[in-house]
Amino acid sequence: RKKNLRLFPLAGESTALVYTTHGEPSQVIKLGTLQLPSLGDKSALVKMLAAPINPSDINMIQGTYAILPDLPAVGGNEGVGQVIEVGSKVKTVKVGDWVIPRDAGLGTWQTLVVLSADDLVTLPSDIPLLSAATLGVNPCTALRMLSDFEELKPGDTVIQNAANSGVGQAVIQIAAAKGVHTINVVRDRPDLSQLTDRLKVMGATHVIKEETLRRPEMKELFKFYPRPKLALNGVGGKSATELLRHLQSGGTMVTYGGMAKQPITVPVSALIFKDVKVRGFWVTQWKRNHGHSNMLDELCTLIRAGKLSPPACTEVSIKDFHKALDNAMKPYISTKQVLVM
Amino acid sequence: RKKNLRLFPLAGESTALVYTTHGEPSQVIKLGTLQLPSLGDKSALVKMLAAPINPSDINMIQGTYAILPDLPAVGGNEGVGQVIEVGSKVKTVKVGDWVIPRDAGLGTWQTLVVLSADDLVTLPSDIPLLSAATLGVNPCTALRMLSDFEELKPGDTVIQNAANSGVGQAVIQIAAAKGVHTINVVRDRPDLSQLTDRLKVMGATHVIKEETLRRPEMKELFKFYPRPKLALNGVGGKSATELLRHLQSGGTMVTYGGMAKQPITVPVSALIFKDVKVRGFWVTQWKRNHGHSNMLDELCTLIRAGKLSPPACTEVSIKDFHKALDNAMKPYISTKQVLVM
Repeated sequence: RKKNLRLFPLAGESTALVYTTHGEPSQVIKLGTLQLPSLGDKSALVKMLAAPINPSDINMIQGTYAILPDLPAVGGNEGVGQVIEVGSKVKTVKVGDWVIPRDAGLGTWQTLVVLSADDLVTLPSDIPLLSAATLGVNPCTALRMLSDFEELKPGDTVIQNAANSGVGQAVIQIAAAKGVHTINVVRDRPDLSQLTDRLKVMGATHVIKEETLRRPEMKELFKFYPRPKLALNGVGGKSATELLRHLQSGGTMVTYGGMAKQPITVPVSALIFKDVKVRGFWVTQWKRNHGHSNMLDELCTLIRAGKLSPPACTEVSIKDFHKALDNAMKPYISTKQVLVM
Repeated sequence: RKKNLRLFPLAGESTALVYTTHGEPSQVIKLGTLQLPSLGDKSALVKMLAAPINPSDINMIQGTYAILPDLPAVGGNEGVGQVIEVGSKVKTVKVGDWVIPRDAGLGTWQTLVVLSADDLVTLPSDIPLLSAATLGVNPCTALRMLSDFEELKPGDTVIQNAANSGVGQAVIQIAAAKGVHTINVVRDRPDLSQLTDRLKVMGATHVIKEETLRRPEMKELFKFYPRPKLALNGVGGKSATELLRHLQSGGTMVTYGGMAKQPITVPVSALIFKDVKVRGFWVTQWKRNHGHSNMLDELCTLIRAGKLSPPACTEVSIKDFHKALDNAMKPYISTKQVLVM
């Protein structure tokens, strides 16, 4: 557990989304005023600009996530802010810099925050606001999963479920930039054809419904594209088992989320006779082990080249947080909710 | 499918255990007489000495294995024979050599067999008969699983189920030779204390029942030994999930068998937050990709040093094959059935 709400002498006030107990976000999250600590030698005062609501933020508030802050805590793990004051010994960031948090659990859903300069990573100044606010978690997850598990060459295939999630949209774009085909699985929904069009514009090779994964027409698809070397699973349960079934021999399934709240069932024969590899990925741990910088450079290069856009976002004022939380928890999220301060 | 029963001009006769349809071994396996083909330039006549009945032999006869021979076929995939005649162009084996089959599916349950010299691997002449007959499948599986997935150092721990299987007994001995602790899970049975003693004499650090895996006393064990880096699963189902639960962060579970005929259930959180890796191993494919020789040298060195004995075996004449098959299919197999010719 990490303490993200510090009680130091007054140096100003922050408007923040705070929770004092774990529970349903709509019930436990309150808009409050926090006293800011005075600025230490090695800390920076950051004015938050925008911060998204990610599925892991919700799980953290519910108390079901792998890491939990000490309570009371400020919600949010990702976002971009601008440095407005720095302590006398701070060398790594300067006034005016755009910064994102180095680690999870620091509390980004607030207007002003004093953080240790060591907890901040500077972004280049030419990255658009929504890209910057949503860069540190989902595109990093997508990039690492596409880079670290299988060597993908142009013409290879990746299959993923939750293709409309923040990670999913980044996977589509980064894979397309590498010349890698994506087969994108989404749940059936009323606006399926618009969603399909939107994902195809991003670079999706195919967009299919969960039900189609079980149908013989999948075989037709693999007449035109090689079977996937890599499957990316943000759902779990049956959806994951279906992804696994379509992998080529020796391929890898990487799990980064479990939206269905069901474990993954792996046939023994797939492991032994198809040499399928079942792995997991957690970007928070990866960043703790490896740091940020090369990864952010690579993503910023894609953003500048017009090859990586932020997910479809809805900007909501921090004061309308109830609406944003409600939208973020709807079963079919069509846009990422981003709090603007 | 591989043709293992060749119909060439007469050059002698072999007594063989043949099946013409897939089904229960006790019903479909018949003792028959086969006409031997004449010896080609590049083939060898081999007098089989001893051949075990492995679980994969049973599955192959039942028709449920990943590779199946053309029918009619001779049973058995492993065994040792002696070369009694070679073709004029054969350089790799000579008369008198002890040989084992290079690949699965060649049919070892027979008294005489003509095989391509390329299908034979020579063993050193100082290896005892039962070791030689049971060397090519289970000890190879054990050695590779202990070598290729995690770097094990003396003092590390491996956990395995099916600890009394052919693979399990080889794992215990090879791990002990490397100074690696083994936690060995077996099903409860009437002769549990004798079995425990027998596995401990081989080098098992701990022998526990399946039920114990779910009990708090497991925690006590991990006060004395590090949590396992490697779990070896020959069972599947709940037993596999329990092994997985005890792995250390970043550890690997390797599945080589599915005795319980149930898939493996993997919690999403174990993959994401514990970075557990779920893999499979199939020795037949490994040998096709990599060949035999270094692996057999390493195992023969252990045998000569008295560190690797064959599993507890019962030798049965090929004519008493019904008894051997019945014993091999009992739910609690205490000894490996080996047909002697």
